[in-house]
Amino acid sequence: MSEKTISRAVIQRLPRYHRCLEELMSAHVERVSSTELADMMKVTASQIRQDLNTFGGFGQQGYGYNVKHLSDEIGKILGLDHDHKMVIIGSGNLARAFTNYSGFKRIGFYIVGLFDNDPEVIGRVFNGVRVMPMEDLAGFIVKEDVEIGILAVPWESAKEAASSMIKAGIKNIWNFVPGDLGVEIPEDVIIENTRLSDSLIQLSYVITAAEQRNT
Amino acid sequence: MSEKTISRAVIQRLPRYHRCLEELMSAHVERVSSTELADMMKVTASQIRQDLNTFGGFGQQGYGYNVKHLSDEIGKILGLDHDHKMVIIGSGNLARAFTNYSGFKRIGFYIVGLFDNDPEVIGRVFNGVRVMPMEDLAGFIVKEDVEIGILAVPWESAKEAASSMIKAGIKNIWNFVPGDLGVEIPEDVIIENTRLSDSLIQLSYVITAAEQRNT
Repeated sequence: MSEKTISRAVIQRLPRYHRCLEELMSAHVERVSSTELADMMKVTASQIRQDLNTFGGFGQQGYGYNVKHLSDEIGKILGLDHDHKMVIIGSGNLARAFTNYSGFKRIGFYIVGLFDNDPEVIGRVFNGVRVMPMEDLAGFIVKEDVEIGILAVPWESAKEAASSMIKAGIKNIWNFVPGDLGVEIPEDVIIENTRLSDSLIQLSYVITAAEQRNT
Repeated sequence: MSEKTISRAVIQRLPRYHRCLEELMSAHVERVSSTELADMMKVTASQIRQDLNTFGGFGQQGYGYNVKHLSDEIGKILGLDHDHKMVIIGSGNLARAFTNYSGFKRIGFYIVGLFDNDPEVIGRVFNGVRVMPMEDLAGFIVKEDVEIGILAVPWESAKEAASSMIKAGIKNIWNFVPGDLGVEIPEDVIIENTRLSDSLIQLSYVITAAEQRNT
């Protein structure tokens, strides 16, 4: 498998493939054509064939795709065939919300610890997840084999927190702090920036376009 | 402007255009070529020209794009040329986190009220935003000219909360509840589903691909 050629656009469609296939599985559908998948995904059938060919092609001419097989293969590509442990740096409202977010557990991602440097909050437990001091982070991620660190601190603390995560040996950062972290990310560290305001901007575009149609 | 032809992929790139242009503006760059924009956006220059042509074409052969003009025009298309009011249905950790999220205010989106039907929480104020009873929602959105309702309740309450929002007259819903709401969305209501687990799946894909490269 050569990942070099896989564009951001394809990667962005992968979660939707996963979701469509889950729906088909729970509806006990055994096989699906690219046209049917295209309808569900709201893209063209040729886009579907092109995307899936990127990953090695799982279809058969005239048969379509075996739903179970395709779902398993996509699951493997996405790393959803095994569980993952995550910690959160920060223990404020966003962090607490995440400890209770069913969508993560459902796909096998578990939050096993919160980290903060505020003595007021260290030792507290939110939805079964304990807040630990930042100096325990490095040891904890080794001991617990933690894969992902979620950065969910206020903007003012982001630079320091991100540096501490990297120093502690976290290799995969999921960042919720908007704007530039001001930290150099080492080559062997993967960072995924989720900008909640991007979804808001997309919604705003759709609202604006609809208003213009109606005037 | 014909919005019919604008694909989801282009819409998903719009926030990034907005961000790149903001960066160029704050660096006092006056004009930019499609090649330079392409470098910043990590897409091809022909993709840039194609995207911007979709919206009417703002460039000039041999000159490129005037940053201020392009930024203003993209801002108008995205509805970022004026302020917007939002309410949140729910007042739990996610809602509280949003009242304090600088990224929304920075692009002109203000949370003006929280709504809940839990008497324990009604009347409380989080980051200056008051929790009001659900029955006040319909009156409040008219009086305050609220544009967007954010759905941020636990999964168990999502169906009822979404129905109440629609009944109260909210026309634009930004939904953070994962899974199917089980509510029919009227044709004149716009809904944007933000699935936090989609970002996680994308991160997981990148991690998995990197692991395979390294083994």
